[in-house]
Amino acid sequence: MPWEPVQEMADKINPIDEALGASIQARLDDKTKPRGSLGRLEDIARRYALARGQELPPVPDAAVVVCAADHGVAAAGVSAYPQEVTAQMVANFARGGAAINVLCRDAGIRLVVADLGVASPIAGLDGVLDRRVGPGTADMREGPAMTVQACETAIRHGAAIAHQLIADGIGLIGLGEMGIGNTTAASALTAALLGLEADVAIGRGTGVDDAGLARKQQAVSTALERHAVASVHPLELLRRVGGFEIAALTGVTLAAAAARVPVVVDGFITAAAALVATRIAPSVRDYIFAAHCSVEPGHRLILDEWGLEPLLDFGMRLGEGSGAALAIPIIRSAARILAEMASFSDAGVTDTGR
Amino acid sequence: MPWEPVQEMADKINPIDEALGASIQARLDDKTKPRGSLGRLEDIARRYALARGQELPPVPDAAVVVCAADHGVAAAGVSAYPQEVTAQMVANFARGGAAINVLCRDAGIRLVVADLGVASPIAGLDGVLDRRVGPGTADMREGPAMTVQACETAIRHGAAIAHQLIADGIGLIGLGEMGIGNTTAASALTAALLGLEADVAIGRGTGVDDAGLARKQQAVSTALERHAVASVHPLELLRRVGGFEIAALTGVTLAAAAARVPVVVDGFITAAAALVATRIAPSVRDYIFAAHCSVEPGHRLILDEWGLEPLLDFGMRLGEGSGAALAIPIIRSAARILAEMASFSDAGVTDTGR
Repeated sequence: MPWEPVQEMADKINPIDEALGASIQARLDDKTKPRGSLGRLEDIARRYALARGQELPPVPDAAVVVCAADHGVAAAGVSAYPQEVTAQMVANFARGGAAINVLCRDAGIRLVVADLGVASPIAGLDGVLDRRVGPGTADMREGPAMTVQACETAIRHGAAIAHQLIADGIGLIGLGEMGIGNTTAASALTAALLGLEADVAIGRGTGVDDAGLARKQQAVSTALERHAVASVHPLELLRRVGGFEIAALTGVTLAAAAARVPVVVDGFITAAAALVATRIAPSVRDYIFAAHCSVEPGHRLILDEWGLEPLLDFGMRLGEGSGAALAIPIIRSAARILAEMASFSDAGVTDTGR
Repeated sequence: MPWEPVQEMADKINPIDEALGASIQARLDDKTKPRGSLGRLEDIARRYALARGQELPPVPDAAVVVCAADHGVAAAGVSAYPQEVTAQMVANFARGGAAINVLCRDAGIRLVVADLGVASPIAGLDGVLDRRVGPGTADMREGPAMTVQACETAIRHGAAIAHQLIADGIGLIGLGEMGIGNTTAASALTAALLGLEADVAIGRGTGVDDAGLARKQQAVSTALERHAVASVHPLELLRRVGGFEIAALTGVTLAAAAARVPVVVDGFITAAAALVATRIAPSVRDYIFAAHCSVEPGHRLILDEWGLEPLLDFGMRLGEGSGAALAIPIIRSAARILAEMASFSDAGVTDTGR
């Protein structure tokens, strides 16, 4: 059966234990501060601990996983940038010059970059994992973007990257991506999964002009007419209109949640990848932090579907995991509040119970 | 003349050089990302560089200065906590158990705690600067909270702390405070400075109940009737209804701005302290980052007066500099983007100018 190995992975994900919430809250309430006075930071701490399944989880070491791949649909002229920019940016990641490098360095976050299928060959780039499934996807206007086998392989590569990070002691994983044309894939995937009209989940990506936007709308419409039927399985939709890097990030999300390691969703593309995961394993939602809300309209639709509020609202639209890297220190700080703040009795501070 | 030494300090503050903004923006536009795609993070980077007066300022080492003092008006029963909690929390800061300790540790921020006049003696606490002006202020319902000399001394202490930090290489200073009753002082000061009715700038502070809130409103009304006249000098208002820690934070703000070091305003009390500074030196506004917006209604009024949007909106109401400590890593990340990201030409990435 297609998708059976992936569904098996999804079925291993445990719902969070809501009962633990009360004892986590009791710990937060006993800290030397008025009840609830750290506002959302307390919600973040509680949510982190619930995901880990521990009343007092360790402060996590964090990583950002950037998956890169090219997209056949880029041939439709849907991006402000030519396809070779995917490979150029992967080289930029390898040299440490991109925004995600700078943000991860600043915050002490481990950065993992994986080539899932960039069109132009990138030989021997230091520190880029070779997880190539092919030289970019097929054009979704003309057929499925991926074969079943390629899609499953990409998901498995993502899951394996997450497994390795978790084995290394990472307890919080940010999702990042690079791929010219991938907001087009994410738009098609989001519209198909949420059962929406093609247009509502389409934005300007990295900055396409009006003519490019029209081509993007046309490409998504064509793809959805061809591929999206209400009854189609979420993983089958991923195969038809997604991308190698998107599938890999679905795999990262599933494997992390199965290991009770929360993921930090970055922008629209990573949200679409995680949306596939929550569709085949609804409990995954409780392992997701929404880093920010980008200007892509589809991003907000996914956050609303999850009922998650983003931590930051900075009007970002870069991708790469840049928003996740900005949000991770906040989540780590929340975890440290739970782990390290003194209680009223420890500190000899008068508690009026307010 | 009273206030002359402080006004002299204020007069040394230079307006930012708006012309520098274009070359900073050109640098940001040449980074390997679509123009403007880092959203507010780019605004923060530009604002930071403008404050430093450099096209390419170094990534700053940061500190949070927590000034603590007691308030005579606490006798009116305006707080959910008894006055001894000020001293207990200073001891908690000294032992490293409070929220601000945890947040500064997490983010690599230097923490400076200064006793400006806690009521109960705190002998020999390691790492707490003794800058005591007196055993708490007088009750503003009955007379001025401070003498001119005490207020000037507190401002000078704050300025000296900032000078020392800047001499040590600190390039970004967060403001924090501790003082039972100090939201009452900040409410009176904000209403007086902004020419508002007494009630509009009053909230529940750390969580006072309805009866306490009524007492707080009464105390502020009484103080404003006694002290606030439209023509009163901002520093004279600070003396009459402020506090030692608030005056010290005004001094930190003035000295930092004079040295082109931006300050990160935390919650309502630190905003009121910085508001005094912007009233005697309007250019100070361009050296201020608003970390977050607390639930105190007066905080939003001050941010609106400045026309500044907070970086975070987490519903916090703790003080201590906790919001500043959460926001500082974001500002530091923005500065590092400007300093360390590769340009299109450096990285060999195709620039389509979008």
